[in-house]
Amino acid sequence: MSDLSAYGLNCTLKGGPAESSTQKMLDQVLHAIAGHGARTASDRAVDHDIKPGVRSDEGVGDAWPMLRQRVLASDIFVLATPIWLGQPSSVCKRVLERMDAFLGETDDRSRYPSYGRVAAVCVVGNEDGAHHVCAELYQALADVGFTIPAAGAVYWVGEAMHSTDYKDLDKTPDKVASTIAMLASNATHLAGLLKQRTYPGVG
Amino acid sequence: MSDLSAYGLNCTLKGGPAESSTQKMLDQVLHAIAGHGARTASDRAVDHDIKPGVRSDEGVGDAWPMLRQRVLASDIFVLATPIWLGQPSSVCKRVLERMDAFLGETDDRSRYPSYGRVAAVCVVGNEDGAHHVCAELYQALADVGFTIPAAGAVYWVGEAMHSTDYKDLDKTPDKVASTIAMLASNATHLAGLLKQRTYPGVG
Amino acid sequence: MSDLSAYGLNCTLKGGPAESSTQKMLDQVLHAIAGHGARTASDRAVDHDIKPGVRSDEGVGDAWPMLRQRVLASDIFVLATPIWLGQPSSVCKRVLERMDAFLGETDDRSRYPSYGRVAAVCVVGNEDGAHHVCAELYQALADVGFTIPAAGAVYWVGEAMHSTDYKDLDKTPDKVASTIAMLASNATHLAGLLKQRTYPGVG
Amino acid sequence: MSDLSAYGLNCTLKGGPAESSTQKMLDQVLHAIAGHGARTASDRAVDHDIKPGVRSDEGVGDAWPMLRQRVLASDIFVLATPIWLGQPSSVCKRVLERMDAFLGETDDRSRYPSYGRVAAVCVVGNEDGAHHVCAELYQALADVGFTIPAAGAVYWVGEAMHSTDYKDLDKTPDKVASTIAMLASNATHLAGLLKQRTYPGVG
Repeated sequence: MSDLSAYGLNCTLKGGPAESSTQKMLDQVLHAIAGHGARTASDRAVDHDIKPGVRSDEGVGDAWPMLRQRVLASDIFVLATPIWLGQPSSVCKRVLERMDAFLGETDDRSRYPSYGRVAAVCVVGNEDGAHHVCAELYQALADVGFTIPAAGAVYWVGEAMHSTDYKDLDKTPDKVASTIAMLASNATHLAGLLKQRTYPGVG
Repeated sequence: MSDLSAYGLNCTLKGGPAESSTQKMLDQVLHAIAGHGARTASDRAVDHDIKPGVRSDEGVGDAWPMLRQRVLASDIFVLATPIWLGQPSSVCKRVLERMDAFLGETDDRSRYPSYGRVAAVCVVGNEDGAHHVCAELYQALADVGFTIPAAGAVYWVGEAMHSTDYKDLDKTPDKVASTIAMLASNATHLAGLLKQRTYPGVG
Repeated sequence: MSDLSAYGLNCTLKGGPAESSTQKMLDQVLHAIAGHGARTASDRAVDHDIKPGVRSDEGVGDAWPMLRQRVLASDIFVLATPIWLGQPSSVCKRVLERMDAFLGETDDRSRYPSYGRVAAVCVVGNEDGAHHVCAELYQALADVGFTIPAAGAVYWVGEAMHSTDYKDLDKTPDKVASTIAMLASNATHLAGLLKQRTYPGVG
Repeated sequence: MSDLSAYGLNCTLKGGPAESSTQKMLDQVLHAIAGHGARTASDRAVDHDIKPGVRSDEGVGDAWPMLRQRVLASDIFVLATPIWLGQPSSVCKRVLERMDAFLGETDDRSRYPSYGRVAAVCVVGNEDGAHHVCAELYQALADVGFTIPAAGAVYWVGEAMHSTDYKDLDKTPDKVASTIAMLASNATHLAGLLKQRTYPGVG
């Protein structure tokens, strides 16, 4: 499986080079995936001008066509988002909206361009919201054609109504570290299987 | 406003008299509401045989008609639920389903029997899910005719993937205590306004 | 109550003057609210440069401070969004994120600047997602201090996996029309009560 | 792949033999899966006494141990639910809660008993809620160890605020039929891959 590749999109609201808790966890996930022999890369979505809309190209100045190409060139897509008000960030929602166009881009076996690719989710907040963010991301990612591996997410939040940041933790909590290890193992295993034999589609 | 009343339903999965973190927080909320002069009472839903269905009376042995009467006899309804898998409990879902019948029980001004009543939400989990549970409960409660006060919920969860129980905390966290105080103030204020002048309806 | 005002934000992905189903329904809601004597106005959020972030002012070129002022100058806030992938639009999420700052802007009675204001929700999609969008919007709006009236939303979606637009319907469905009438009645009634006697807060 | 098996749980609120729209769609999905050579079976959950709780066996009279065995004996698990108030049924929530126990039942490679099994979702409502129900089911199913195939759900809902039942449609809508065909193809393909080479786990 040494020819697998993984691509991460960090959907923080903070433009680079501001420190980002979400980037910290995304980097940890990509590092673990690299440990299984995959090439990895990532972008910070807010640094690119992703236009509002639901087409694959929204015209002059739209950064999505380039990011879309990076998503589809990879076997594993890691979507990473902070939590605001218990929900995914607006930047993350923008990315999901732009993938809605996959539904109109089927091949002659009715498969979306995302078929055969695995999606994993990475969620970071201060105090609450990780399960719901996973739910929304899983649903949107599955709807647009990605496959979700067993235990396909890793998250961290602190105690209710507290404001500690993941980036400021002295040490990665053991449960987070072991979840990252399992996620990387599951995602690369499943991506390897699907790369060898993708969905046949219908038609 | 000394004639206000509040009724709480604890939707824990644990039958009485087992200790319940959800009951602990519900009792704190009802105590705070009582501090504004309202009468209060509560039940543990799982101790009653609420039949599956979406009618106000599902026949022989159905405990819902009695609980429904308690809900509608009160000015403030406090729905309290634990979090499982980041979501409200099945017992809480059962209660919400049974209130779906309100939609077919309008008066000559097209008002549901719940109109003019205020709903508040109380959510307790180990580590995550409170915002989403609030979202689902607010939506279901507003759909069936309740009014949601400003900041109409209180919740507690611990750090991600940890398993501390609210009932085992030595001390109620300050933020939880101040949120309960505000919730009680807002709910009783709004219930008092609506009791004096309820929604006029249309028709 | 003739001095009430309502402000609507249309969170369509389409910039003006493109026709918008969401605007059509928002206009219907605001018209019904005006029928109760309130002044009304609205903006299309995507036509304004709302910067990513969670502060009330994100600096040079940020349109949010102006929109924020319009929200807080009104007694009723109508948040209108299309549905994409079963979820609120990224533009709507951006608006909600910016209101997160209210939580840090309390007065000496611990009240957010939004206290005493009523929020209503307006949701338009092709085929599915309205209840969930209402859930997310109710939760976020209640979290940041708005009050949700009984039956505080109106929505329209068509049959599963179909693509009819609300703007292309020959006639507003009767159920949508009666729901708009009830929403306008409830929202103005509640806003009137709270304008006369707002939440006292605690402290 | 002729030795694959699929098991469906219908989470309608209606006990047998009452006609169930959810059963109709579940039967269609299982029929399509059988067309790929898999053995299929299903149960109606509400006909069994699934006790409240989060352990794999809640004691005398608990029907879950038997249903749990059927879930884990199959390669594909199809969870089918009606929509009430835009949300999964209380019966469906009960089933999900009982699978929470998988998290404590890991093998020496930290794998849940569900690892290597594929889950698909089937959702039927009158008018709205399918995407959100999918989101909650995907998240819960992935959390407890199932793998979600590309486009792993089929649903039907009618126009907003209407009350047509899926069981009363003269003809299965073309989009529903083609979605069922794709779901069956994807689920059996993925289950076949994982049956040959399941997740290796970590440790």
